[in-house]
Amino acid sequence: MGTVTNLMAAIADTGRDARRGGYSRAVYTPAELDLREWFTAEAGARGLAVETDANGILWAWWDLYDGGVRLPESSRRGALVTGSHLDSVPGGGAFDGPLGVASALAAVDRLREREESGALVRNRALAVAVFPEEEGSRFGVACLGSRLLAGAIDPAKALGLRDAGGNTFADVCRAHGLDPDRMGRDEAALGRIGDFVELHVEQGRGLNTEEYTDQAGRGPAVAVGSSILGHGRWRFTVTGQGNHAGTTLMEDRADPMVAAAQIVLAVRRLAASVPGARATVGRLEPVPGGTNVIASRVDLWLDVRHAEDATVADLVERLHGQAQKIAAFEGCSAQLVEESYSGTVHFDAVLARSLEHSVRRTVPGAPALATGAGHDAGVLASVVPTGMLFVRNPSGISHSPEEFVEDGDAEAGVAALADALEDLL
Amino acid sequence: MGTVTNLMAAIADTGRDARRGGYSRAVYTPAELDLREWFTAEAGARGLAVETDANGILWAWWDLYDGGVRLPESSRRGALVTGSHLDSVPGGGAFDGPLGVASALAAVDRLREREESGALVRNRALAVAVFPEEEGSRFGVACLGSRLLAGAIDPAKALGLRDAGGNTFADVCRAHGLDPDRMGRDEAALGRIGDFVELHVEQGRGLNTEEYTDQAGRGPAVAVGSSILGHGRWRFTVTGQGNHAGTTLMEDRADPMVAAAQIVLAVRRLAASVPGARATVGRLEPVPGGTNVIASRVDLWLDVRHAEDATVADLVERLHGQAQKIAAFEGCSAQLVEESYSGTVHFDAVLARSLEHSVRRTVPGAPALATGAGHDAGVLASVVPTGMLFVRNPSGISHSPEEFVEDGDAEAGVAALADALEDLL
Repeated sequence: MGTVTNLMAAIADTGRDARRGGYSRAVYTPAELDLREWFTAEAGARGLAVETDANGILWAWWDLYDGGVRLPESSRRGALVTGSHLDSVPGGGAFDGPLGVASALAAVDRLREREESGALVRNRALAVAVFPEEEGSRFGVACLGSRLLAGAIDPAKALGLRDAGGNTFADVCRAHGLDPDRMGRDEAALGRIGDFVELHVEQGRGLNTEEYTDQAGRGPAVAVGSSILGHGRWRFTVTGQGNHAGTTLMEDRADPMVAAAQIVLAVRRLAASVPGARATVGRLEPVPGGTNVIASRVDLWLDVRHAEDATVADLVERLHGQAQKIAAFEGCSAQLVEESYSGTVHFDAVLARSLEHSVRRTVPGAPALATGAGHDAGVLASVVPTGMLFVRNPSGISHSPEEFVEDGDAEAGVAALADALEDLL
Repeated sequence: MGTVTNLMAAIADTGRDARRGGYSRAVYTPAELDLREWFTAEAGARGLAVETDANGILWAWWDLYDGGVRLPESSRRGALVTGSHLDSVPGGGAFDGPLGVASALAAVDRLREREESGALVRNRALAVAVFPEEEGSRFGVACLGSRLLAGAIDPAKALGLRDAGGNTFADVCRAHGLDPDRMGRDEAALGRIGDFVELHVEQGRGLNTEEYTDQAGRGPAVAVGSSILGHGRWRFTVTGQGNHAGTTLMEDRADPMVAAAQIVLAVRRLAASVPGARATVGRLEPVPGGTNVIASRVDLWLDVRHAEDATVADLVERLHGQAQKIAAFEGCSAQLVEESYSGTVHFDAVLARSLEHSVRRTVPGAPALATGAGHDAGVLASVVPTGMLFVRNPSGISHSPEEFVEDGDAEAGVAALADALEDLL
């Protein structure tokens, strides 16, 4: 049916962002809907039965057959599931999400060939899943689809989330054929997931570190996920005195932008002092935001991650204290609100050993790697056994147009995924 | 016809901004168009002939009459013109602009009464003018209407300006009945302005300083403008390496937000070290602006003002140098682009003496005041004699919902404006 390279090439022009570079494929925007259509067509061409569940997750089923007759739906219970997401951050890369979906389709091709040749006898059904709003770039909560499925977010809270245009998640879901009243933890769907394996582009330079690279400086093509760092989002609101930029003397100001700038620097300073910690301010919004106006308020968002949940909590608490001192010195005030938090996730140990064993057949040096990025697999880990494969990203850059995967590594990823799935089927 | 307080009350609900507080009345949005309709109706009710010129400026003419017969249009040459603007910054106050327009209408009422009673014999026509896009909050260049009229901006540059929605000024003007080909310096319109007097809310606390206040701490209601500080807008673009907030180690980052924060602090530090200087960053936009994304670029806008043009230029040059060092240290780069600059304006000395003489009849202690805010009167000062009256703002706050004028001061402003216009007619 074609290589993963060809599959990715078919969507290379969907959702390009001319202003930011890269791709902007927010959930339920035309670009992401186009990608869903592409997925549905590709799955259909492989004879998979595509369904959308109550939470907007797409499932493409490769059911079990007996003498040419498809077994009843009850045979999907405990199935092997793989997949990822199709949405992106604003101005994101081509691979974050779609590589896992395209690799799943390409792996199904290999497995079907093996089944047809008699080399593979399946004991269970397989599904390719596509999760909505993994990035949280439209409604602010990452992994929203898998959180709803797993019951990891209150549906009422999820449905009330708003995008930048003021639309609620409930209204947007309704407009795309979902019934908000039916959204939330889905026991039947969870019962169909025996194991979940997500392939994803590596988002850091873990596979490029000296520990793993050969004499040519080249790392292995694939790693097996060991854990996901605890991570969360917090919003600082710094309130000052809005005023005219031309008539207000410097000494009369209570400028929240000046306080916000010091908070940004405190975030960098504190995070750099804690080994393994990562903290970022990537979003900052002055209100009203005019050039000739001293802002009355600045909202800034904080992303903090570390392997130890207690370290994240301590870092955020210290930042909160520093922010309040900074704001007070500037005649402003600062408030902190937690928007989301996901504790450190250790992937299922049995599944991880199976994945390592399978992957090392095609990628001998495949290491076990922790990641600082959140994933649907991390959310689902609390309810079903999950594992991950990471494909080498020579740039080490992600959430950016520079994110990259070499064709050969992508094909190695498919080979490893197919072997891993075969061993689990 | 009603007091200025009543005139202002009639528009108190137009263009309110529930999110930011105050008013958002950007040029050619429904709120500003409603205010134009209100002005046209109020001027019409006073028998003034309302016209829109090629640059979108509204003119309400109180023509000269001879024996009940209106004199031909040529009699408008060298007329006395007063007025201001109706647009606002996002989340601005009620008085910045509209107070000058409403006071002009109320002053016309007083002058008509004096003419009817025989106490006033006019030697020239009078017009009330309303200038579009004074704040520059939609298309980024302040005083755009008066700049076009005076030939202080290249029409091609003005027509190519875009709002946040990507609409060009040319398209928006066309949609509101203007012909872009006819926009630009208008000799005929300039020939009709003998003198221009703009009444405006004071935007700082000049009238509240100890120098002018009485024992109760109350300053005079009105001041006469002496000069407008030189001021301009510059855009810094800080470029770094976009990346994933979770997977990128702190030591591997080239984060333009960290550099931008240091630039904000450098702006504050340098401006505070130069007596009389004001410098502000009120607008800052990270790209792509996602919570879980290290920005690839941050744009921030700089507003700098000082009474000496050379001091502004020196301050901006030093900031540019500091920004480049800051950015380089962070592995980023910084570029600076001037978006607009208006040199220090000294109002016409003869007109200012006349205004002081007239105003002190009703406001004995009325001082002469310089202002840090830009005005259409400042732009027009390069082509016609202009002067300004400032009405006391007890909060000293402007471009914010807290901007305020007491009713008694507003009425004193109308009395002073009417006397000043009478002496000039």
